[in-house]
Amino acid sequence: MRTLEEWVNAIPPLDSAAMRAAAERQNILTKPQGSLGRLEQLSIQVAGITGNPRPRLSHKVITTMAGDHGVVEEGVSAFPQEVTPQMVYNFLRGGAAINVLARHVGARVVVVDMGVAVDLELQEGLVIKKVAKGTRNMTHGPAMTREQALQALLNGASVVEELIGEGMDILGTGDMGIGNTTPSAAIAAAITGRAPAAIVGRGTGVDDAGFYRKIAAVERALAVNRPDPKDGLDVLSKVGGFEIGGLAGAMLAAAAHRRPVVVDGFISTAAALIAVTLAPHVRPYLIAAHRSQEQGHGIMLEWLGLNPVLDLDMRLGEGTGAALAMGIVEGACKILDEMATFAEAGVSEKEE
Amino acid sequence: MRTLEEWVNAIPPLDSAAMRAAAERQNILTKPQGSLGRLEQLSIQVAGITGNPRPRLSHKVITTMAGDHGVVEEGVSAFPQEVTPQMVYNFLRGGAAINVLARHVGARVVVVDMGVAVDLELQEGLVIKKVAKGTRNMTHGPAMTREQALQALLNGASVVEELIGEGMDILGTGDMGIGNTTPSAAIAAAITGRAPAAIVGRGTGVDDAGFYRKIAAVERALAVNRPDPKDGLDVLSKVGGFEIGGLAGAMLAAAAHRRPVVVDGFISTAAALIAVTLAPHVRPYLIAAHRSQEQGHGIMLEWLGLNPVLDLDMRLGEGTGAALAMGIVEGACKILDEMATFAEAGVSEKEE
Repeated sequence: MRTLEEWVNAIPPLDSAAMRAAAERQNILTKPQGSLGRLEQLSIQVAGITGNPRPRLSHKVITTMAGDHGVVEEGVSAFPQEVTPQMVYNFLRGGAAINVLARHVGARVVVVDMGVAVDLELQEGLVIKKVAKGTRNMTHGPAMTREQALQALLNGASVVEELIGEGMDILGTGDMGIGNTTPSAAIAAAITGRAPAAIVGRGTGVDDAGFYRKIAAVERALAVNRPDPKDGLDVLSKVGGFEIGGLAGAMLAAAAHRRPVVVDGFISTAAALIAVTLAPHVRPYLIAAHRSQEQGHGIMLEWLGLNPVLDLDMRLGEGTGAALAMGIVEGACKILDEMATFAEAGVSEKEE
Repeated sequence: MRTLEEWVNAIPPLDSAAMRAAAERQNILTKPQGSLGRLEQLSIQVAGITGNPRPRLSHKVITTMAGDHGVVEEGVSAFPQEVTPQMVYNFLRGGAAINVLARHVGARVVVVDMGVAVDLELQEGLVIKKVAKGTRNMTHGPAMTREQALQALLNGASVVEELIGEGMDILGTGDMGIGNTTPSAAIAAAITGRAPAAIVGRGTGVDDAGFYRKIAAVERALAVNRPDPKDGLDVLSKVGGFEIGGLAGAMLAAAAHRRPVVVDGFISTAAALIAVTLAPHVRPYLIAAHRSQEQGHGIMLEWLGLNPVLDLDMRLGEGTGAALAMGIVEGACKILDEMATFAEAGVSEKEE
């Protein structure tokens, strides 16, 4: 089992030779140069990540990590906390949106209990990496101890370590946790330095009163805890969540193993903020799946310097955006690998 | 064989009962209401189009229609005209971008010769609906006769008629034709009333001199021919192309058979302008696949009132954007059909 420092140090720079070879191949495929835009860029990025000039992404996995949040006491969510385990069981039975979209793109869903408030029944497809039964209410003090934050990161990394052993080619991140847009907004405010009111959104659809309670909760959590924006572990422990820590750890481990990471929406992007704060060189391994409808997501993407693949007004989480974007990224790599060149197809090139 | 008027009159309004049933089902699925944004809207639209409150789109077809253009004499394209048949053969061998992306999403590609300048070798997968061997140079007079324009529309409709017989659930449109961004820009300028300079782009990558020749060619074609913007057949015959007419006819026939149409990029959208001018009630059957990088595409989408599904800086044509968007639309319909309801999954609903 690696330490956090070992994970961070294991992340290599992208392979520039593989990227150059991929870019050169894109230019001799039977299409005007650059005409597949973002698809070409994604394929070159994945070449650099994997070190393979013609990467294939057949084994696709979405890790949907679940956790509960003490801050729900503040009335910040439209749904009761019991929905977290109920939705975990829905994932395990295949009835949730992430199951449908993952099946659609040919990805596997791995559900991880990072910190659900109740004990879950052990069953096929559920990985137990529980740090504790929910975080504490961050408006009164740290959401978790520094040791728990570290444990969440390492537990998330260990999930990816197992998936790598099973042959995973690409990781998509997903989340489930009633109340988790509140710590995500707090993380974003802490790290980007923007005001909570610019970042907090309505999550699963809280009403006006709940929305103002949510802004107030984030403001109070930041005032009470004063997280250090340069210290990802400090931010995670004071205003984070176990599933958010797990996702950040998963990102570090995937990058250390040269696997691309498709970052879902608001919660996953908060995890990316933690991961990049801990290890700035993880950034080129990240692909932002979509622009969430949740207010403040754009601020997080801008801080990360990521341009999302999709913009479909989604705000569900679970990894739903990551699943759809993963399909696009896989298609981009197939373009690079499967298309005929001008020479192979006997097609005339551009006139100079 | 139906007449054009019969095709136009055969297009029914969307089924509002099916749309209502789909919208009601979306609201009881295990997710916050509206949280899948565009996916929910697409599924409801397809329910209305098909008349089925839980539509499935398993049999997906992209028709890639090819034609040549007399206006290439004006030096408007970066590639020589011989590339049109060369790319048709590339499609038939499966080496082009559209083949890769269609395979990726599980769609079939049907290649149609609507008006390639040379005789093509008959082979499996190629449908010959040739109206003539390329259009005439529209800067000197009409690109085709009114009878040829009508023939192109009916030939395109007949392709779809055959596909419906084979069980097609959804149509994606695609094009191949060296020089065809020039007539497409002329159609857009004629119908939207915007200046050619605001619409003409660089197509497959013409240089500065070619770009200005292209604007001048569109301006001259409009001045010489004076197409009537209210008469789709007049616009098509004077400044159109055979593949563009074929695609417009295919759209009318698909709508008449209650099948959704995923409209690819710049050329397909020009065909949609013709189709909507001929039959305004075809519009709700159209789904704009993506925002092309080609200048002027936004003007066309705005005139049509369509909001594209994807924005990936693509500008290739062939149906490549339609293939990727079709995957998203199919996923949207699977969400509607396959997700568990709150009651089925035993998940608590939102607190009021």
